[in-house]
Amino acid sequence: MATERSNEPIGVFDSGIGGLTVVAALQRLLPSENIFYLGDTARVPYGGKSRRTVERYSIEIGGLLLAERAKVIVVACNTASALAVPRMKEIFKVPVQGVVTPGAQAAAKSTLIGKVGVVGTRATISSGAYEHAINSINPGIQVLSAACPLLVPLIEEGMFDDDVTKIMLSRYLGPMLKAGIDTLVLGCTHYPLLRNTIAEVAGPHVTLVDSAENCALAVKRLLADAGIAASPRRLGGLNVALTDATEGFLRSAAQALELEIGDVALRSVQSEEGNPA
Amino acid sequence: MATERSNEPIGVFDSGIGGLTVVAALQRLLPSENIFYLGDTARVPYGGKSRRTVERYSIEIGGLLLAERAKVIVVACNTASALAVPRMKEIFKVPVQGVVTPGAQAAAKSTLIGKVGVVGTRATISSGAYEHAINSINPGIQVLSAACPLLVPLIEEGMFDDDVTKIMLSRYLGPMLKAGIDTLVLGCTHYPLLRNTIAEVAGPHVTLVDSAENCALAVKRLLADAGIAASPRRLGGLNVALTDATEGFLRSAAQALELEIGDVALRSVQSEEGNPA
Repeated sequence: MATERSNEPIGVFDSGIGGLTVVAALQRLLPSENIFYLGDTARVPYGGKSRRTVERYSIEIGGLLLAERAKVIVVACNTASALAVPRMKEIFKVPVQGVVTPGAQAAAKSTLIGKVGVVGTRATISSGAYEHAINSINPGIQVLSAACPLLVPLIEEGMFDDDVTKIMLSRYLGPMLKAGIDTLVLGCTHYPLLRNTIAEVAGPHVTLVDSAENCALAVKRLLADAGIAASPRRLGGLNVALTDATEGFLRSAAQALELEIGDVALRSVQSEEGNPA
Repeated sequence: MATERSNEPIGVFDSGIGGLTVVAALQRLLPSENIFYLGDTARVPYGGKSRRTVERYSIEIGGLLLAERAKVIVVACNTASALAVPRMKEIFKVPVQGVVTPGAQAAAKSTLIGKVGVVGTRATISSGAYEHAINSINPGIQVLSAACPLLVPLIEEGMFDDDVTKIMLSRYLGPMLKAGIDTLVLGCTHYPLLRNTIAEVAGPHVTLVDSAENCALAVKRLLADAGIAASPRRLGGLNVALTDATEGFLRSAAQALELEIGDVALRSVQSEEGNPA
């Protein structure tokens, strides 16, 4: 049953633009929902920064989403999900949904031989969040991880089908492919944009698990459970805001994901008076 | 003649760690000076961000350096030099020295045929700052520029002598080498760490201009002119502070530059009360 909160937006945040892969998945699955997306482009990337800094940024961005009346906060950034979701859940009353748990559940379901690979940023991988989440579902699964710090820059350069990208993917994935994984978690919201090239390098015997799709499913369940899903009779919209005015990668990502993005708003993440971004 | 201010430190800042190349050059040239280095690792990189954001960050970091009693502010970041130095000079009373003007002067002096190449981040190149600075010295010099957005990530991965780095350098430098430049400005403080590989790709007929060396010379002149150079009888020290607690690349860069770095301090760039970084 629709309540007063039903028409409020789903708040989605990422350190930058990569979280739009989650927005695309949400729009496919929940076309009636309004979505407010906030990309912290003024401080992107989070992937090499410390837990304390990532927590601080995530809480600040969460506050900005609540100011937009978000009924749920979707942390569409693996680094922030791995490092900051526990603290956000302590602080905020609205439900907070990260991408790590849905990705881990899908991986545990997918693997037939109990060997899962995880790729992500340096911060995500060294947090051990996926390994921990997968092993708390099934302690028998062997998890092989690889930090892939160059993939985000390569993706942001639009080098999706480039020799250099293939060389780097072969290096990053080599050891886990040799070890015989049958499932690979794309543990960074940028990576689905590179899905075809990753599939090519990983080969036909490896199932790719995309945290974006699985996160959207988790949000759908969460809205239903809380009785705050939008009425199916309406058509939802998408609003995008960034913390820095550079839009370069936004347009190419939106095009690749077939997202309609209108005017992009700016939000300040500086709290000093009289000096908005 | 030494004044009261002579023993105060030279304040050096960069978006991250790359500015340590300027510190190394300053230490070689001015061994008596104290240096306080501040790397804004919580918001690194600046190279893809907007002018307004880079200005705001630079002014904030400048303020932190003044709180350390800096007698001069050295902007050891090409992006901040290209985008924020004019505004910093309006705001701060202490001298502000960027890396663009010294680099442009050296390039204008170096070229014999009037064809100079400039490589840098996207923000530095699209600002046109080097082109403008070189042409205000000599309007007859043809300046060919290339944004090299992947070089900083490659350098931060320590991939100095790697095939992938060589492939990317060949792509970035190809057109300007074909056009026959005889001088190449390394317009990003990270790039001197890649000097050997760049020299290999550029070939023996291209002179590399390193903005770090030339910036250190400019600081030496500036201190002498203002009468605030340290007494030559003393030995200067180096203090390093970062805005985020991740030190990964710091140690490898310091090693490559043979810099002695002791304990690293933290400085907060968040102005909300009660939530220091």
